[in-house]
Amino acid sequence: MLSEIPKRNVALLTDFYELLMMESYFDMAKNEKKKIVTFDVFYRSNPFGNGFSVFAGLNEIIDYIENLKFTDDDIDYLKKNGTFSEEFLSYLRTFKFTGDIYAFKEGSIINKKEPIIKVVAKIDEAQLIESAILCLFNHETLIATKSYRVCKAAMPYQVMEFGLRRAMSFDAAIYGAKAAVIAGCIGTSNVLTAKMYDIPALGTMAHSFIMSFDDELTAFKTFAKKYPDMCILLVDTYDTLKSGVVNAIKTFEYMKENGIKSKKYGIRLDSGDLAYLSKEARKMLDAAGFTDAVICASNDLDENVIMSLKAQDAKITLYGVGTKLITGDGSSFGGVYKLSSVYDDAKCEFVPKLKISSNAEKVTNPGNKEVYRIYDKSNKIIADYICLSDETINENENITIFDPVETWKKQELNAGEYKVKKMLNQIFKDGKLVYERPTVLESKKYFETELTTLNDDNKRLTNPKEIYVDLSRKLYDIKIGILNKYSRIK
Amino acid sequence: MLSEIPKRNVALLTDFYELLMMESYFDMAKNEKKKIVTFDVFYRSNPFGNGFSVFAGLNEIIDYIENLKFTDDDIDYLKKNGTFSEEFLSYLRTFKFTGDIYAFKEGSIINKKEPIIKVVAKIDEAQLIESAILCLFNHETLIATKSYRVCKAAMPYQVMEFGLRRAMSFDAAIYGAKAAVIAGCIGTSNVLTAKMYDIPALGTMAHSFIMSFDDELTAFKTFAKKYPDMCILLVDTYDTLKSGVVNAIKTFEYMKENGIKSKKYGIRLDSGDLAYLSKEARKMLDAAGFTDAVICASNDLDENVIMSLKAQDAKITLYGVGTKLITGDGSSFGGVYKLSSVYDDAKCEFVPKLKISSNAEKVTNPGNKEVYRIYDKSNKIIADYICLSDETINENENITIFDPVETWKKQELNAGEYKVKKMLNQIFKDGKLVYERPTVLESKKYFETELTTLNDDNKRLTNPKEIYVDLSRKLYDIKIGILNKYSRIK
Repeated sequence: MLSEIPKRNVALLTDFYELLMMESYFDMAKNEKKKIVTFDVFYRSNPFGNGFSVFAGLNEIIDYIENLKFTDDDIDYLKKNGTFSEEFLSYLRTFKFTGDIYAFKEGSIINKKEPIIKVVAKIDEAQLIESAILCLFNHETLIATKSYRVCKAAMPYQVMEFGLRRAMSFDAAIYGAKAAVIAGCIGTSNVLTAKMYDIPALGTMAHSFIMSFDDELTAFKTFAKKYPDMCILLVDTYDTLKSGVVNAIKTFEYMKENGIKSKKYGIRLDSGDLAYLSKEARKMLDAAGFTDAVICASNDLDENVIMSLKAQDAKITLYGVGTKLITGDGSSFGGVYKLSSVYDDAKCEFVPKLKISSNAEKVTNPGNKEVYRIYDKSNKIIADYICLSDETINENENITIFDPVETWKKQELNAGEYKVKKMLNQIFKDGKLVYERPTVLESKKYFETELTTLNDDNKRLTNPKEIYVDLSRKLYDIKIGILNKYSRIK
Repeated sequence: MLSEIPKRNVALLTDFYELLMMESYFDMAKNEKKKIVTFDVFYRSNPFGNGFSVFAGLNEIIDYIENLKFTDDDIDYLKKNGTFSEEFLSYLRTFKFTGDIYAFKEGSIINKKEPIIKVVAKIDEAQLIESAILCLFNHETLIATKSYRVCKAAMPYQVMEFGLRRAMSFDAAIYGAKAAVIAGCIGTSNVLTAKMYDIPALGTMAHSFIMSFDDELTAFKTFAKKYPDMCILLVDTYDTLKSGVVNAIKTFEYMKENGIKSKKYGIRLDSGDLAYLSKEARKMLDAAGFTDAVICASNDLDENVIMSLKAQDAKITLYGVGTKLITGDGSSFGGVYKLSSVYDDAKCEFVPKLKISSNAEKVTNPGNKEVYRIYDKSNKIIADYICLSDETINENENITIFDPVETWKKQELNAGEYKVKKMLNQIFKDGKLVYERPTVLESKKYFETELTTLNDDNKRLTNPKEIYVDLSRKLYDIKIGILNKYSRIK
């Protein structure tokens, strides 16, 4: 799989404090062995009020880790900065990530408060990569989750990703379109993304094309002759119903008369009252015998506008969604990267750590952990279950799962009535990539399968039911133990 | 100036329909000469309810144009796509932008409905670059405008850009931080941006640093010894007032006792009630004699939260702003790229074109245009004035300027009482860069000067007065003339 990230030198794409902390850790390691730690990437709420999120970004995180090195130019810059010791800079010169990374697969349904990515590494290595990992995770997961919502609203009709011009710079366009396709879009207008990930490149025509001709009909006919198989004519340059649709029909008649076959033809509405215009256009097209002409709509669409259009019985059969999909529509994804344990050489074990907060919801889950997904016999998700990585679940035994905040909410699962799946796959081992990356279309397929494991109440767009995320008894006891210890400060 | 964009192959970072239209234009040019056209980049409303916008992105647009070429790999991909003719693909193989580009300077105050960038080029060249130009313009201008607001709210205190982990992928972090610095931030946590544009790299420490030690005080002292000159201690890992600030004070006392000098020291609050905590922390620090200790705050800040904190008399003296600055806080910048004229070889002139809309505000301004900024004698902006590029303003004559929608709103300017400045600078001439790019810090300085040309009512954050943008009489008449012609369709 091609990607642009490997070709770029982005070791310095980190927060300055990561370098300060790295150097502190480096200095300390002169006296003692460098600490091995675990960090978790997780998030605290699903964006857009969705019932879950859709994980994307792993492919780019892999590229980033695989190509992480400081160039001479980087080192010269840091030297000039004056903050860092020669010794530390020499170390950076040969720096390379040598730890382990575990993660969910791209296209996975993910839930709040569970580790989506786990880094097990020397503390300075784990610290450096925080900023870039979060950046990639937060961006793509946000867009994928939004894409799910837009495509769900549009069903049974399809959605094309049209956001390049409103994306937050090039990468947001490139990787945002990729994430959008994983979570439902049939393709993108962005040719580079289409090329990089082998997904369909889609498009129609712009107003400027029409305006560059003396008249609309000539513009339409020129396009129709040239691209009969993707002949979606933009009808709102002058007057949608009085000019655009009339000339589109003339063009389709011209094609028919001249034996110009088309796999896909129709019109695109890009302004005005899409509900009204689509219904009027449908009548005109049908009356002229073009009952199979596509009516595509674009113009600041999102899942809410699409649902509203459908409620008005709009006759739109294809959607192009730009701004509100590619920018995440005002939401941001709040993924965080938190230290969860530090390896103790004397005890030969990971000592759990947690970040306190006066808000119970914000207290992190300590320890080196594993995530199991528990399914019922019909392969629907019952709950996600977080435990310590040295715990195992035996499907042949009954288990009790319980809510980690409202602990009286319990569920007893009998042996034979449930199945489990380990969700964290090893991606890097000792700094080496040990994971075979699926293509984007494979991840898209994977997400479709993931959707079959949800109930309708998880999938609905308004007030969905979230999936339970429970802790093992052992993990819960450790967490409460640490909290009790610190509560003495108050 | 360094930038990452030149190193990347992004010719295909365009909407698929641009390539379809390019090929159509290419085919037509077999029979007649290729058309020369003008396109304008403009926008229709200022984001965040601001009174103006701050232009950024030109530097990256220049990189993009200068390095625009299709690689063999790109051509192979397009060939495989099956849509394009061999002839057109051969043409793309040698493609290069050969037109002219005019633009405002980065850091300029810009207003809605005026051309910020003007492209004069062969129609297929102008069409290809639409998507990438809009992407860069919309992104950076949005972030710069937001940065102005956040920094204005924080004055006289300073703002650091902290958004990397929440940015929409790498470029959004890199170029967003750059735009944020142009429009007010004193620096960024993003080391790569700091390196690329020679701006300050700033930072403190993370919770994980503190948690990796057995206790908070040891963590603080370790950091203070290592980085006395940037000793801003994060105090909310365990309990802000009972633990964090207490240990910070112990650390500052330890520094004093041991003669560790510091240029800048203090605390950072990253959660909880920032107003209350900052006031309590200030009292504690002052009582211990550390009256010059900085109190830095971060955690989902924006201009509204900052104004609210100030209204509560919070004692914050430095702000770190992340998510809501780097993501544009739910807004997107609606820059568009519209055909404004087509050169007529017979008439030897640009024939004005416009895009009709039933909404008067959305009708574009036709013609090959120029923008003048009119200042009063004290160098404050009176209005921006859009005219045809063959018109001139003679400062020695009186002029009448009038609102292009509410045409009865007129203003007479007497000779000697106003000055004008041409706002569009030539950037490319026949495809060659003819503009010397300022550095980011120069653009930052330029923006500071721009701010002095505004009145307070333009600068306020709530219900500001927008700057008048007027049309010349000639341009107005042409526009009305075209509209009258098309209105016959209705």
